[in-house]
Amino acid sequence: MQRCLELARLAAGQTAPNPMVGCVVLQQGLVVGEGFHPQAGQPHAEVFALAQAGARAQDATLYVNLEPCNHTGRTPPCTEAVIRAGVRRVCVGMVDPDPRVSGSGIQRLRQAGLEVIVGVEEEACRQLNEAFVQRITRQRPLGLLKYAMTLDGKIAAVSGHSAWVTGPTARAAVHQLRATCDAVVVGGNTVRHDNPRLTSHGHSPHNPLRVVMSRRLELPPEANLWRTEDAPTTVFTGPDADPAHRQALATRGVDVVTLPALAPRLVTEHLYQRGCATVLWECGGFLAAQAIRDGVIDKLWAFVAPKLIGGVAAPSPIGDLGLQNMGQALALKRTSWRLLGDDLLLEGYLDLPADS
Amino acid sequence: MQRCLELARLAAGQTAPNPMVGCVVLQQGLVVGEGFHPQAGQPHAEVFALAQAGARAQDATLYVNLEPCNHTGRTPPCTEAVIRAGVRRVCVGMVDPDPRVSGSGIQRLRQAGLEVIVGVEEEACRQLNEAFVQRITRQRPLGLLKYAMTLDGKIAAVSGHSAWVTGPTARAAVHQLRATCDAVVVGGNTVRHDNPRLTSHGHSPHNPLRVVMSRRLELPPEANLWRTEDAPTTVFTGPDADPAHRQALATRGVDVVTLPALAPRLVTEHLYQRGCATVLWECGGFLAAQAIRDGVIDKLWAFVAPKLIGGVAAPSPIGDLGLQNMGQALALKRTSWRLLGDDLLLEGYLDLPADS
Repeated sequence: MQRCLELARLAAGQTAPNPMVGCVVLQQGLVVGEGFHPQAGQPHAEVFALAQAGARAQDATLYVNLEPCNHTGRTPPCTEAVIRAGVRRVCVGMVDPDPRVSGSGIQRLRQAGLEVIVGVEEEACRQLNEAFVQRITRQRPLGLLKYAMTLDGKIAAVSGHSAWVTGPTARAAVHQLRATCDAVVVGGNTVRHDNPRLTSHGHSPHNPLRVVMSRRLELPPEANLWRTEDAPTTVFTGPDADPAHRQALATRGVDVVTLPALAPRLVTEHLYQRGCATVLWECGGFLAAQAIRDGVIDKLWAFVAPKLIGGVAAPSPIGDLGLQNMGQALALKRTSWRLLGDDLLLEGYLDLPADS
Repeated sequence: MQRCLELARLAAGQTAPNPMVGCVVLQQGLVVGEGFHPQAGQPHAEVFALAQAGARAQDATLYVNLEPCNHTGRTPPCTEAVIRAGVRRVCVGMVDPDPRVSGSGIQRLRQAGLEVIVGVEEEACRQLNEAFVQRITRQRPLGLLKYAMTLDGKIAAVSGHSAWVTGPTARAAVHQLRATCDAVVVGGNTVRHDNPRLTSHGHSPHNPLRVVMSRRLELPPEANLWRTEDAPTTVFTGPDADPAHRQALATRGVDVVTLPALAPRLVTEHLYQRGCATVLWECGGFLAAQAIRDGVIDKLWAFVAPKLIGGVAAPSPIGDLGLQNMGQALALKRTSWRLLGDDLLLEGYLDLPADS
């Protein structure tokens, strides 16, 4: 199953709205077929693994981290392929939360006389596809807020200068993280001050959709994000945007979307409709606070660099949340810490109310 | 030697301006005497250990984490006691940086025919007495800045409310830390907003001298720090202080010291003259920044709690340092991280210019 997860991860960032799935076929303890789902619209992991196994799939054991599908989507149901190949036993990591599948794939295999074991390494399987699970169960992409601050809680100096808070190891981890995300969001201030590229910087051929939220589109005429040959860029704006600015961006190949109000929740909904499963927020404190208040942030990646910059007016990672008392602070759950070079990375989850 | 360090630490916070010293006498591999230096003016560790060993010190090996003294201070020289007891071999952790000793103790022992081994577990011995070493070599106490912030870099909510940022394990670690310090410093704002006690809260019979810096002495008439039956309190003030306020504090048993200017450097110098080796700064961002700029902070204890409070106007741990560019940030050296309950503690050193 661990090998299934490794295979599945090879397509990280490229499968949305589909899950990451890896599959291994074992014949008498030997691997005779491996595969993973490379991209939505492409065949599922089981198809690749069974094709590689060929006749050796007869009486074999098949491992797959997610329940095989039992419906015809863009590809035919995997259950039929598994049955047809003569597989005798199927080990499933987790039941598919997709209501179109959700147990029916397992049922179909059992009806056909196959032995099916469910819940193998289930926790790791759930973790791998946490964004997919959330997308299915809550109709919302997984929102991930990432920031990097000094040990005195600043994301930039008083001047706004911020290059760099963290060292190269931490920055490379962010580039890799982007490669696993479907969209990365910043505000207009970040474009104006930092002129980021928001790509995976060659760590992967995959780049996320780059998203800018800008109320009036008062954005620089030249910016790395307008180089749409690197990766696509979408700018969300509100009703007050200057039509000339809108036109200028469109001629650069930038997709401009006008929303009734420029709110993180509406942007998230739009990205969900476009099939995004993981949305990475790499914005400043104002937009980060808005996104938290809108209930679209599920997970935090906070880098802490062992340095002090000071500055009462130097920006902090999160703006106003409307909390007056330390007891109201939003606690992070399931936290973990790790060192990346000299810097520390905290990962944790925000406990959102079930309806958000 | 590790046992010497354990013994020495029993008097943590109580030996200044003297070092912490532990001593073990071994006769044919068996411990026949142990001792530690309990307090300035009391006998040295070697005296206690040799007294316990008695006649069994003849031809014994003596371990001590710091070179034995060879001068008559408030107590006679330890070298003579060691020689007189008939000890054959002495294992010394580190040479005493005190110019009145500095190798002459070792020389005296060798002249008397004893075998002397120097540098046993030297790094651990230096770490234990880092404050003493700094006091001797730089004529300044070791300055330690401690703060506790949320993962978004705030030491309080926008309202100023801060109880509590960290959990009970981290707070208990602070109480223990205080027991090892000679003085703990806050500003007037901390007295007004938090009304702290600044004691070791029963973790040790020892409490540090409690120090308040207040320019005009506009302090609450009732405050935990004025309960001088718990621990002594000194208030430093400047020339603008109201004499009536000064008098009111003095009648409470609070020591009031007027400085020509209310600067961390002058306060530190005063505390040095009073024999302090470790000064803990538990102040807010304004005073913390002043202390860093004055070059009196050597070491940082930064707690990071896995929670978010938000607030553009919520206070950060360090005020203005006058740094404009992220490249100018003060890097922490020799950092280490550890978990205390749910909270993380970073320890690190500020690299100060040699003249500060």
